[in-house]
Amino acid sequence: MDKLDFRSKEFNQTGKAMYELAKELFPIPRSITGQGFRDSLQILNKTLGGGILKFHSVKSGTKVFDWVIPPEWHINNAFIITPSGEKICDFKKHNLHILNYSEAVDKEVSLEELQDHLYSIEELPNAIPYVTSYYKRHWGFCITHNERKRLKDGIYKVFIDAKHNKEGVLNYADFVIPSTQNKKDEILISTYLCHPSMANNEVSGPVVAIFLAKWLMSLKNRKYNYRFVIVPETIGSIAYIHQNLSHLKNHTKAGFVLSCMGDDNAYSLIHTPKENSLSDKVALHTLKNKENFKEFSFLNRGSDERQYNSPLVNLNIAGVCRTKYGEYKQYHTSEDDLNFISKKGLMGGLQAIQEIVLNLEINDIYQSTTFCEPNLGKRGLYHTLNNGVKQKPISVDFLAYCDGKNDIIDIANILNIQAYEIKELLEKILEYKLLSIAH
Amino acid sequence: MDKLDFRSKEFNQTGKAMYELAKELFPIPRSITGQGFRDSLQILNKTLGGGILKFHSVKSGTKVFDWVIPPEWHINNAFIITPSGEKICDFKKHNLHILNYSEAVDKEVSLEELQDHLYSIEELPNAIPYVTSYYKRHWGFCITHNERKRLKDGIYKVFIDAKHNKEGVLNYADFVIPSTQNKKDEILISTYLCHPSMANNEVSGPVVAIFLAKWLMSLKNRKYNYRFVIVPETIGSIAYIHQNLSHLKNHTKAGFVLSCMGDDNAYSLIHTPKENSLSDKVALHTLKNKENFKEFSFLNRGSDERQYNSPLVNLNIAGVCRTKYGEYKQYHTSEDDLNFISKKGLMGGLQAIQEIVLNLEINDIYQSTTFCEPNLGKRGLYHTLNNGVKQKPISVDFLAYCDGKNDIIDIANILNIQAYEIKELLEKILEYKLLSIAH
Amino acid sequence: MDKLDFRSKEFNQTGKAMYELAKELFPIPRSITGQGFRDSLQILNKTLGGGILKFHSVKSGTKVFDWVIPPEWHINNAFIITPSGEKICDFKKHNLHILNYSEAVDKEVSLEELQDHLYSIEELPNAIPYVTSYYKRHWGFCITHNERKRLKDGIYKVFIDAKHNKEGVLNYADFVIPSTQNKKDEILISTYLCHPSMANNEVSGPVVAIFLAKWLMSLKNRKYNYRFVIVPETIGSIAYIHQNLSHLKNHTKAGFVLSCMGDDNAYSLIHTPKENSLSDKVALHTLKNKENFKEFSFLNRGSDERQYNSPLVNLNIAGVCRTKYGEYKQYHTSEDDLNFISKKGLMGGLQAIQEIVLNLEINDIYQSTTFCEPNLGKRGLYHTLNNGVKQKPISVDFLAYCDGKNDIIDIANILNIQAYEIKELLEKILEYKLLSIAH
Repeated sequence: MDKLDFRSKEFNQTGKAMYELAKELFPIPRSITGQGFRDSLQILNKTLGGGILKFHSVKSGTKVFDWVIPPEWHINNAFIITPSGEKICDFKKHNLHILNYSEAVDKEVSLEELQDHLYSIEELPNAIPYVTSYYKRHWGFCITHNERKRLKDGIYKVFIDAKHNKEGVLNYADFVIPSTQNKKDEILISTYLCHPSMANNEVSGPVVAIFLAKWLMSLKNRKYNYRFVIVPETIGSIAYIHQNLSHLKNHTKAGFVLSCMGDDNAYSLIHTPKENSLSDKVALHTLKNKENFKEFSFLNRGSDERQYNSPLVNLNIAGVCRTKYGEYKQYHTSEDDLNFISKKGLMGGLQAIQEIVLNLEINDIYQSTTFCEPNLGKRGLYHTLNNGVKQKPISVDFLAYCDGKNDIIDIANILNIQAYEIKELLEKILEYKLLSIAH
Repeated sequence: MDKLDFRSKEFNQTGKAMYELAKELFPIPRSITGQGFRDSLQILNKTLGGGILKFHSVKSGTKVFDWVIPPEWHINNAFIITPSGEKICDFKKHNLHILNYSEAVDKEVSLEELQDHLYSIEELPNAIPYVTSYYKRHWGFCITHNERKRLKDGIYKVFIDAKHNKEGVLNYADFVIPSTQNKKDEILISTYLCHPSMANNEVSGPVVAIFLAKWLMSLKNRKYNYRFVIVPETIGSIAYIHQNLSHLKNHTKAGFVLSCMGDDNAYSLIHTPKENSLSDKVALHTLKNKENFKEFSFLNRGSDERQYNSPLVNLNIAGVCRTKYGEYKQYHTSEDDLNFISKKGLMGGLQAIQEIVLNLEINDIYQSTTFCEPNLGKRGLYHTLNNGVKQKPISVDFLAYCDGKNDIIDIANILNIQAYEIKELLEKILEYKLLSIAH
Repeated sequence: MDKLDFRSKEFNQTGKAMYELAKELFPIPRSITGQGFRDSLQILNKTLGGGILKFHSVKSGTKVFDWVIPPEWHINNAFIITPSGEKICDFKKHNLHILNYSEAVDKEVSLEELQDHLYSIEELPNAIPYVTSYYKRHWGFCITHNERKRLKDGIYKVFIDAKHNKEGVLNYADFVIPSTQNKKDEILISTYLCHPSMANNEVSGPVVAIFLAKWLMSLKNRKYNYRFVIVPETIGSIAYIHQNLSHLKNHTKAGFVLSCMGDDNAYSLIHTPKENSLSDKVALHTLKNKENFKEFSFLNRGSDERQYNSPLVNLNIAGVCRTKYGEYKQYHTSEDDLNFISKKGLMGGLQAIQEIVLNLEINDIYQSTTFCEPNLGKRGLYHTLNNGVKQKPISVDFLAYCDGKNDIIDIANILNIQAYEIKELLEKILEYKLLSIAH
């Protein structure tokens, strides 16, 4: 696997391209089922050059473990006409105005009755909140708190043109970028695509995942298979696990749910319940020295890691974010928009997961092949003139810890470097046959 | 097992009843053997309604492991007549005036000789200290330091009417409140009853133990058998272990020595040597968030946990106190009197050990029965309308950690609640068959 | 093993004798091979009374693991004549002036060319640095920075009368002070003797080692065999391990590299890679409460512990120093002279390693032989009169932790005493048969 050049022109162009993709995905009215979700998957497929994503569907009504796939939701239009004839909460202007999965309605109601179907946030008076009701039928609108306060008594016309199709489907996609070494072990990269017009949560997740895939496909060597999963959140990952449980359990070595990958404020790790799985270890190693790094226990989980780590599934999948969902006030509102993310933010998110991959790829357990320290000076790996003050070169420290028990991440933690930084040195050392794989 | 209602009227009446029992026990002249000890046991038996305590005796001279049961001590009267004819250190006025286990004496002595037989505390000049000499024959008096300083030269008459009866016995009592589920595992509750007129150390220990027993007997369900042991300190627990060693080793799952349970200043845990036995775990979980909680290592032990945890006995019994013996200045003096304890203090002590019992009773290891998270919304255990800001309900967090390895106390520690608080939720979840016992 | 009397007159005389030995060794021009090394070994042997050290040699050109024994170096004379005719960098005045292992030279050079062969330290302008080039042929001189700055343009005569003899040898010595109990386990004491005129690093190491040996030989009882190894650093320990690998692996229970043992500023422990071997445990226990104690990870290693702990050798040998090499500015310069060490400093170093030995010798795992606490009062090991305030004596705490799992160092750590301080008490307890060896 090639080392990442984070300062290359190509890498900078990647930031721009990611932001463009986010812009293209942003306005589409998505939900956990329906046309918006399918359209979004097609855009991702096109970005990878086409023919990469494998599309799957599960029929509404299908039992998946303890759940049932809901009817597919179609939403065409929705608005309210005020007593003074003004059209507000217009779905065509902002798709967050509709309660996601709302049922249809077409009637006149008093303000009092209407209030029971409005959702707003007092603390963020200019934001439209994102509210869903997938498994219980309601109708409703999301509205800024300022606009809500202006509503006067009188008769309101409420109109929602929506359908719940029991003959519909739930869609998702996956694909595997194969190991170049014919190995069976997989790294799982999972992201969700069901939220409508919000930028950090969630289009940044699929955007970074797709550019991670592009980069992985460009590499000459890959030890692992990389399984990408793009689903609607919760019900999608449950359906995915339902269809693929035994394969996932047999092959998954580590994995990450990517979410909120595009802002510029922090790096976050949501631990697995065990806190010491390979996923935890490599993500902590990679992220711990980044600016504003925050570590969260599994108690703070909130996305598909809930399903992947449920007791009987138990895949040890960590969550990786820039600023974690729920940790910024714009979260789940119209203020999580394209201004909240940036090229730099997306690039930071991509770089973080690329470094995680580089660290996974290089990680292995090696064992010294010589008794005592080898003579590194004669191989150009140690200074030959010794004044006792010069620091020992990293070569000698690295070899000293290759005891057949520490893996490279363990040693890199001791040496306070990133595991992937050892790559060039490791190659020289392997050429000199000073180490052998320990297992 | 029913949940404890700490605000009930009944519970308040309990505080009053406990204080009354303490008052009744307080004045009796007790020692490690003799009539005072037997009288005190009878009062405890009566408090439980009679017929509950099983009385045992071991003959003086009996070898119990490395020890020999001492002769039984009889004390009738003791005093000193000063040169001016004043009667001081009058046993009839305060039974702490006599060196506990003192031999008889009836003679005249100079002040100089008398001084060798007086015990007082310079730092607590108005307190009569509590001093004992069980295994070496002495005569002596305990006196306030202020009174001692007033003694003038001259001839003193010292009179102690005491006997050491080699044909006597050492008494103790025990009883078991049985499991309602026919299980064999026992929880040991041990307390000592040999100290004369002191309130926190020690009548509060037996008082709380007896009211714990009353409450346990009132419960409809008990997973465990509860073994209560009421002994003279040290020699009594050694004798008890000697008579019951193999039963205790086979059945004891956890246990607690109750001592100093009636003041209102702190909650204390004395750890077992291992520090991570079930006794340690449940007591730490229960007490750690209480006001003025103090954790002590086994190095700070001082009561019968010394015997229960001695290397070959090894029962893993923790100590539970309000303010620990040795940690308050009135300890082992006449100032540890009925004013030092209170209804509220005793109620706090009882509540602490009741909560420990509730946490023990609910504790078990469960395993999820469904792959992925179950659909809690359809069972009323999760909100169906989701704005992404609402906290996940405790139901989903609880289930996420039921992995067949964590027990309920582990999970309650993660969720920062008391294990017994999960009871109602657990019952619902078990009704829905979302969990099964893991072992 | 007798307890150490650190205040004895004999012990004070030892400080003086150690300093005298350091003075005798100091001026000898040593290197990793050659006459200076052999002369120094002879002085050590004489100090022990003769006939103790076993001398070994390995021929130049011999392969030892990944290394080859270098030619033996002979150095007779070296100096520079300045353009004004002054003789500087005179080897006869200070043997640090010569680049250690320098090749011969006899020619005239410009100042510019000369500069490439001079070594000085800007930050320590009056110090001659110690520089070596064992495995690559150079010629060079070490000079104070102040003198170097005074050098003027012109033609310099450089003269080095040195030889590299391919038919030479590398010398080292070892000896074993045997167990008086016929046991096989060994404690390794390793020190190096290749540095020329420097005092803390290194003559203090061999000096303390030799006086440790003297003391060990004077003892009536020794549980362990003590293997002393005196080698040139790095190549010497590699050669030693090469000749003795299987014996060392089979018998070494713990061990210490002694270096920088003569200054008065700190006590230092360099951990093994595992950090919890017996060597780490006993050294940490012994040193942790000493003034200015510093703990270093294996990352900070720098001496022969590098070889002893290399992954396939894996002997778990810790480093013990007063102020660790590299941690004082005079290190590896002419300012690490006889003023940098002191009688008191050497005595502190000797005492530290003697205490380590005492703690190793007493350390064992014991198990109580009685159920419950034994009656210590009847054996004079506990007060018989109890006022509840007196501290439990150490006897009862010590026995409470003798559970067949804790060793004496574990218990001493709990009791916050030195393991060897328990000796007298342990002997009494063993006499009373209250403990038996657990393994």
